[in-house]
Amino acid sequence: MPLVKPGDDLAKMIVEAARHNDVALESGDVIVVAQKVVSKAENRLVALADVKPSKFASQVAAVEGKDARHVELVLREARRVVRMRDGHLIMETKHGFVCANAGVDLSNVSGGEVASLLPEDPDRSAARIKEGLRCLAGVDVGVIVSDTFGRAWRMGQVDVAIGVAGIRPIRDHRGEKDMFGYVLKVTSIAVADELAAAAELVMGKAEAVPVAIVKGCTLARGVGSARDLVRPIEEDLFR
Amino acid sequence: MPLVKPGDDLAKMIVEAARHNDVALESGDVIVVAQKVVSKAENRLVALADVKPSKFASQVAAVEGKDARHVELVLREARRVVRMRDGHLIMETKHGFVCANAGVDLSNVSGGEVASLLPEDPDRSAARIKEGLRCLAGVDVGVIVSDTFGRAWRMGQVDVAIGVAGIRPIRDHRGEKDMFGYVLKVTSIAVADELAAAAELVMGKAEAVPVAIVKGCTLARGVGSARDLVRPIEEDLFR
Repeated sequence: MPLVKPGDDLAKMIVEAARHNDVALESGDVIVVAQKVVSKAENRLVALADVKPSKFASQVAAVEGKDARHVELVLREARRVVRMRDGHLIMETKHGFVCANAGVDLSNVSGGEVASLLPEDPDRSAARIKEGLRCLAGVDVGVIVSDTFGRAWRMGQVDVAIGVAGIRPIRDHRGEKDMFGYVLKVTSIAVADELAAAAELVMGKAEAVPVAIVKGCTLARGVGSARDLVRPIEEDLFR
Repeated sequence: MPLVKPGDDLAKMIVEAARHNDVALESGDVIVVAQKVVSKAENRLVALADVKPSKFASQVAAVEGKDARHVELVLREARRVVRMRDGHLIMETKHGFVCANAGVDLSNVSGGEVASLLPEDPDRSAARIKEGLRCLAGVDVGVIVSDTFGRAWRMGQVDVAIGVAGIRPIRDHRGEKDMFGYVLKVTSIAVADELAAAAELVMGKAEAVPVAIVKGCTLARGVGSARDLVRPIEEDLFR
């Protein structure tokens, strides 16, 4: 896929890239799109040079050894601080996601430092791509917008779903019985996160492959929101 | 695959099931095996009727609304309590994994209640299966033993790797640069966990499909241990 620029039509680029790579787009496919290209297409980019950090942001930046303008954007994107320690800013974003830096990534586009923010409404981003693929290719697909998050307790990051369309993110097994008639301990599986994780395995970290097409997986199709994956704070033992 | 019983040779059963399902086992494949059948084959089963709960276990069981014999086994398998609240026992196991009930699952085998414990050394379990597949089928594969864990902050459970053989669980991107020459924010990806998550999508929760074969994924091959996925407590912001 070519590099994504603000204003680009991702659905169109996906259709063309699929054609170019001889991959058929079919109804029932799940299309996983990396957040970084969604944020770029939606122009969720801020030049660091234009950011004026608050006093609090400057203070946090000094303590945590970070760029004050980056911290300023992180604080603007967050609605709650979950942990702030050892240079890590683990924040709850306005969407409810708990992740490092509230999803604000720094990158270096054409010489200047640019921060990319999460899409304002990643479900809507996914819905827009889904609708575009329906119009352009006549296919009824599921779409997942994925991002790379760290986890408590475990090393390494994994991709998770931050926006979905045509996807029911949680598969519910509550009340089902196992082969011995025993009620299953596994009550619900975050299939959208598992699809995002699977897609990461074929994606390039350096934007070369920002989209993956999952075939033959019907169990996630349905209606839902990435908000279904956010644990309400009153049920959360770790916030 | 037929039902697994204590003492069963999982490698042999995998070879036979692959043949029966017309799937070729090839060098380079990654074989993901669900913990529950590994624990069964290794006879990590305890009849609840044989467990005598301590006073502390009985007290916890009363407070949390659980079976005291189950709690007793959970405490025996744990080395640290991470959270104990609202009926949830989030424990650190002797291996270092943070999960509900220290991985002790209840099931109902031939009429009696039976608890299944995690394998004592899941890396060794994986290595045994890997060696068996080498001997029986002449293939050099990677093996992942997977289990279903909940997460902080996010709803739903996902499968993760608790044992590996022939697998380097973390793919390190530290120092790599993106297409614009900017050092990547993503430093390390837990590829073994992503493979376990991908495998869950084709596994049955009710033991019908306890093994998945991943083809065409070379990036996880190497040498490592599932301990590489355990965040040391001194680096953990959430323990």
